[in-house]
Amino acid sequence: MNKSLGFFLGFFGLLFPLTVAKWNILNQKSHNGLKISVKEYCRSWRLNIELNNIREFQVVPEECSEYIGKYMRSMQYNVDSELALDECLVYLSTSCNLKKDGKDAWIFDIDDTLISTIPFLKNYLGRRLNLTALEEWMNKAKAPALDHSLRLFNDLKSRGIRIILLSSRREHLRSATIDNLVNVGYHGWTCLVLRNPDDELVSVEKYKSDVRKQLEKDGYRIWGIVGDQYSSIEGLPSAKRTFKLPNPMYYVA
Amino acid sequence: MNKSLGFFLGFFGLLFPLTVAKWNILNQKSHNGLKISVKEYCRSWRLNIELNNIREFQVVPEECSEYIGKYMRSMQYNVDSELALDECLVYLSTSCNLKKDGKDAWIFDIDDTLISTIPFLKNYLGRRLNLTALEEWMNKAKAPALDHSLRLFNDLKSRGIRIILLSSRREHLRSATIDNLVNVGYHGWTCLVLRNPDDELVSVEKYKSDVRKQLEKDGYRIWGIVGDQYSSIEGLPSAKRTFKLPNPMYYVA
Repeated sequence: MNKSLGFFLGFFGLLFPLTVAKWNILNQKSHNGLKISVKEYCRSWRLNIELNNIREFQVVPEECSEYIGKYMRSMQYNVDSELALDECLVYLSTSCNLKKDGKDAWIFDIDDTLISTIPFLKNYLGRRLNLTALEEWMNKAKAPALDHSLRLFNDLKSRGIRIILLSSRREHLRSATIDNLVNVGYHGWTCLVLRNPDDELVSVEKYKSDVRKQLEKDGYRIWGIVGDQYSSIEGLPSAKRTFKLPNPMYYVA
Repeated sequence: MNKSLGFFLGFFGLLFPLTVAKWNILNQKSHNGLKISVKEYCRSWRLNIELNNIREFQVVPEECSEYIGKYMRSMQYNVDSELALDECLVYLSTSCNLKKDGKDAWIFDIDDTLISTIPFLKNYLGRRLNLTALEEWMNKAKAPALDHSLRLFNDLKSRGIRIILLSSRREHLRSATIDNLVNVGYHGWTCLVLRNPDDELVSVEKYKSDVRKQLEKDGYRIWGIVGDQYSSIEGLPSAKRTFKLPNPMYYVA
């Protein structure tokens, strides 16, 4: 994580990230004839986050914090998420032969997949995240549901699919996490996996892959994963299909 | 190519993908209270293509054909592509210890990665595209360079990186492909791999993965792949990093 420290500090920070600096140089020199607005740049920045071309960013670029904040509160974010989740149902309807033997499984991430951290993060866009403050907020168990995700969750459950919640939240947040999920309507999952201290020694991608390996050993067929971070859906073993929800607010390696 | 025949379909095709049909149904029912504009829907559609949530689409949804056409001719598409390619240089500058022993390699796809098919696809509006027409156009060797890609290509070459061109074009297009690439400024690549009839029996992802396997056997260290399709960058063995250029026009499985 330290490797990318200082990558996206915005135009007025003391340290200029290589990416943005390079972009500015290109833009100023205009050797390719591109003269772009901040909005065009921020749209590109967001797309390239979602394409997983820009990785390990520590903060939303300062000049894009307003744009990203607006996006996260917009209808567009809702539509983007809903279309992604609709694809889960298209996939289930056309490609999955569920055995309904209690071993058909689906994995969900939690933050910004089932419930939203926007109420907390809206104050942090363009600034470095404070883990202590984030966990204090999580402990309050007040994160709202992402409605489209709740509908998918219930739909999958009604099909007899076992739901596994696999989060990079730390184990000490278990009780608050359960309270929060139940309070906003989630119940009936099969297991909730959180990170214990050993898991913190490896990347989130490795931690989540290891959990999937164990699930497969236990006989589960993992039909799908829904997550807002590539670290939730990459790494082996994977699932038969993965679905990436939009999230340009932060990066979990 | 036959497997993916029909993926390059024109903008006003008669067949609607399952995805769109499903969305329309959901939308009409409006069970979630979302009332959205066509533009919001089309933006979401494009994002979900790039997220690889929507796969194997056969045709751009009719209501989005104008939006997608505009996007492909827009500054935004240029900016999106350039930012993606800038990330290649950020990565090279910060993460790659090149040995410069002739085994540092980088893979590029060709169509809509190095050169653009837009001049052909825009002339194909309203009609289902067939392989013959596409290959006739490719045979004319008139596809323009994507300027940002040409700059990256030359930059990598100047660093002593061997450049491998790996395309799903068929072998009989070799001469036209070389002419086209050279005419718009590409030269000095190490090898150009095209599909022979045997390769057409497997998916593009498998064909490209198999080529990478052979490259690794030959001792190459594949630092990066740049492609506009997930079938160019997914599958094992991969590269140390992959970079996805935007392309909402067609899907190659």
